[in-house]
Amino acid sequence: MMINKVGRSLPEQIEHYGKVTPYAGAFATQKDGVKTGARLKSFKRGEKKLLSGIREAIEKSGLRDGMTVSFHHHMRNGDKVVNLVMQEIAAMGIKDIRLAASGIFECHAPLVELIENGVITQTVTNTFNPGPVAKAITAGKLAKPAIFMTHGGRPRAIESGDLHIDVAFVSAPTCDEQGNMNGTKGKSACGYLSYSYLDAQYADSVVAVTDTLVPYPNCPIEITSEFVDYVVVVDSIGDPGGIVSKTLKVKTDPVSLQIASNAANLADAAGYIKDGMSFQTGASGASLAAAALVRDMMKERGIKGSFGLGGIHSYFVQMLEEGLFKALFDTQCFDLVAVESAGKNENHMAISASLYANPHNRGAIVNYLDTVLLGATEIDVDFNVNVITGSNGVIMGASGGHSDTAAGSKLTIVVANLTRKAICVVREKVTTVTTPGETIDAFVTEHGIAINPLRKDLLEAVKDSGLPIVDIRELKAKGEEIAGPQVAQEFTDKLIGVVEYRDGTVIDLVYQPKGYEFQQQ
Amino acid sequence: MMINKVGRSLPEQIEHYGKVTPYAGAFATQKDGVKTGARLKSFKRGEKKLLSGIREAIEKSGLRDGMTVSFHHHMRNGDKVVNLVMQEIAAMGIKDIRLAASGIFECHAPLVELIENGVITQTVTNTFNPGPVAKAITAGKLAKPAIFMTHGGRPRAIESGDLHIDVAFVSAPTCDEQGNMNGTKGKSACGYLSYSYLDAQYADSVVAVTDTLVPYPNCPIEITSEFVDYVVVVDSIGDPGGIVSKTLKVKTDPVSLQIASNAANLADAAGYIKDGMSFQTGASGASLAAAALVRDMMKERGIKGSFGLGGIHSYFVQMLEEGLFKALFDTQCFDLVAVESAGKNENHMAISASLYANPHNRGAIVNYLDTVLLGATEIDVDFNVNVITGSNGVIMGASGGHSDTAAGSKLTIVVANLTRKAICVVREKVTTVTTPGETIDAFVTEHGIAINPLRKDLLEAVKDSGLPIVDIRELKAKGEEIAGPQVAQEFTDKLIGVVEYRDGTVIDLVYQPKGYEFQQQ
Repeated sequence: MMINKVGRSLPEQIEHYGKVTPYAGAFATQKDGVKTGARLKSFKRGEKKLLSGIREAIEKSGLRDGMTVSFHHHMRNGDKVVNLVMQEIAAMGIKDIRLAASGIFECHAPLVELIENGVITQTVTNTFNPGPVAKAITAGKLAKPAIFMTHGGRPRAIESGDLHIDVAFVSAPTCDEQGNMNGTKGKSACGYLSYSYLDAQYADSVVAVTDTLVPYPNCPIEITSEFVDYVVVVDSIGDPGGIVSKTLKVKTDPVSLQIASNAANLADAAGYIKDGMSFQTGASGASLAAAALVRDMMKERGIKGSFGLGGIHSYFVQMLEEGLFKALFDTQCFDLVAVESAGKNENHMAISASLYANPHNRGAIVNYLDTVLLGATEIDVDFNVNVITGSNGVIMGASGGHSDTAAGSKLTIVVANLTRKAICVVREKVTTVTTPGETIDAFVTEHGIAINPLRKDLLEAVKDSGLPIVDIRELKAKGEEIAGPQVAQEFTDKLIGVVEYRDGTVIDLVYQPKGYEFQQQ
Repeated sequence: MMINKVGRSLPEQIEHYGKVTPYAGAFATQKDGVKTGARLKSFKRGEKKLLSGIREAIEKSGLRDGMTVSFHHHMRNGDKVVNLVMQEIAAMGIKDIRLAASGIFECHAPLVELIENGVITQTVTNTFNPGPVAKAITAGKLAKPAIFMTHGGRPRAIESGDLHIDVAFVSAPTCDEQGNMNGTKGKSACGYLSYSYLDAQYADSVVAVTDTLVPYPNCPIEITSEFVDYVVVVDSIGDPGGIVSKTLKVKTDPVSLQIASNAANLADAAGYIKDGMSFQTGASGASLAAAALVRDMMKERGIKGSFGLGGIHSYFVQMLEEGLFKALFDTQCFDLVAVESAGKNENHMAISASLYANPHNRGAIVNYLDTVLLGATEIDVDFNVNVITGSNGVIMGASGGHSDTAAGSKLTIVVANLTRKAICVVREKVTTVTTPGETIDAFVTEHGIAINPLRKDLLEAVKDSGLPIVDIRELKAKGEEIAGPQVAQEFTDKLIGVVEYRDGTVIDLVYQPKGYEFQQQ
């Protein structure tokens, strides 16, 4: 066994995963080498790409037992393509598929049956919503451990060759017969298809799946025909209504407003609310409330920001259109206002996940980010954050861009209610380490702000600010006082997940919680 | 010695070139494999890219004797960056550089001295204008044979690893400190930087050279920071006034109009003037005159075309804005109207040279092209075309997209005056084969139209059209009658150039003409 830098025990090898490289620090693994070679393939004049349907595409792509099949998650909880393709794969008798879907949502409930009968034996994901598939994995139904990556880790793995994709299925709101795709037009417009760019560039075969076939050329083109082998038309790739995150609403309850206010004032006191500032926030209500306060500060003071980054929502679009941001860098649209903006604002730009957050990229935009607001299911006294499992060990998320932006941003603020029901969010050790504490600068709650002691400069900057700065152990004590005694979840020794840090090292392992029973609903 | 499919004798090996694969037919070399791996490099947060100048960039990039250095040619005859960088390389005492400049123009006269003193020992180009460098190569001044590629052959060579670039210098009309570049803005706006995309993606080091540094992020971004190692600011990257091709003017003399009319009527008779049509034309006066006639036909008949392709000029912009084309696919701007359009019309799209014309690309747009009009310095009775040398053996051009579009397009028309001074354009054998006759469908002159006998369908389609269809040998006889007896140029056995077909095979060799004396002016 090895111990990694956040203190987790790891074996040297994991069956169905391979050699384990232990996490050695947020910036310990730098690279200077050569990317893997992408597929090179000639297409002659007149060669046809348009096929009769999903089945023919599966046949032509040579998809067979043991292969890795990829999808992107821009339709989020409205997606229909993953189920459609995987059910056809199942109907053809193909088994042992590694499902490299950048995101899995509640709508993917039909996959549980395919996991149970061995069609899908492993998942590789960077976005996960609580739901049937997460529960099935928690219940140990996957034959091989689930692999959790980050938004930047996935393109890193693809470019380095660590994640080889045999067949990529790209959902395209509009597409022409040659495979030129666009995400911002059509009846199922979902916004930019950013997460699929690397899949399309590196997969051995690429299938464009569309419900809106348009005449060639499908301009403006987002993913060009040079990456596409086959085009398939289906009735519907999904319901754009499912794109909108349930949580996408500024919270106005007093606790959320207190947290938001603490977070915005912290960023201000630390000097990050200024001309040229950049900002990223998730879609949680408290984060959005903080963004709203930041917006007010900017307007009041006439501040012109640089860029907003990540999942883009109506609040950021508004800030772009008000001139508070010069640009938006978009990896996915979180609502339909963002989709519309992507189709019309030239400074609302698509970026690949590699450009967004790949640690082994020469221009990763997270490295130019000033402030990011992130969530947590748990945080520990070393500031390590968990967003993958609940304190009961049940899988309920994935890193997304959490670890990436935490590492890149100059100021990384985790916001959370100190307690949730009988749970105190601050733990001695988090159940699962997603993001290492060395990359978290502050933890902001309704009961005060804990600053990572590693950030002496930040402690110095805010010392006279009047902000409620407290030690994280004080927050822990306070939380336990409110939530009551914390019961430690026990685990079996069945490994159900491998958590990769963005650089491909292993930061933690997920074991099956004792006594967990799968319930589909 | 080997004989290739157009009858040229080739050695099996060429010193300073390597193994020779003989041209075996326009579509004989298909590929299904893996691209070469591009550079993979981490950049940490806070790492600086902005350097003090060209010299520091040369030092930091590790540029040394024997390396390959690349440039793109969007500033055309207004470019200043090639001279600036190469003179700095010379000043540093570095020698034996392979200059992989996508285009060389008259403005690059200072390179002659660098060729003479061994700083530059080989050139790899796909665009060449008559001028001092072409003359110096003709005079045998390069230590190693010049390599002539096509617009599609160059990205093929880069993607396959045949052309490895050590350091790419990308001229950027606007750029930010992280290397995000845009070609359509700034005082030196030259239009899209398409030819440099592959250089930026695959070179070991990439240096952005700009005269207009703008705040981060330089949106909309054309080449992103992920491909850029260093940023350098210079006084001027060039004079946009030099972009405009001298020939870019519709010709109105009776001979040109006759040729244009024959060409447009041929395309019409062959059925390619119709809804959904696509079209490419070079910048020669007769081609533009033909384009003007095609435009008139489209307007008269209410035809809606699909796309215009290649070098984009004001005539194509007008057709886009009139709705005659749905889209323009742009590899370079031929005038400032095109530059302006590139910055504002969303359906005026940049395409990489690989997407444009690479024969080993899954979506090369030349393969969807209906009609292309091309020029020639010579054409022979087998319809082989020469655009590289004059009949006197002097280098005066390069393929550009000639061979690529000829192979891809459904109808490839070569237009030329039958005679130029005492030269008959039709030869028994062309001096240098650039584009194989099997990909040329018709040769249009003021004295009639010769159709390639391989295109039986085309001969059938036009037989009742009333067009002046003649045998190419008749044109040859007529031309010789007008121009007088043709004197065959004699050549020394000094090899000065290797002409690659787009697939990387060797289609011809260029030897030094006997009795040629270099004159700078």
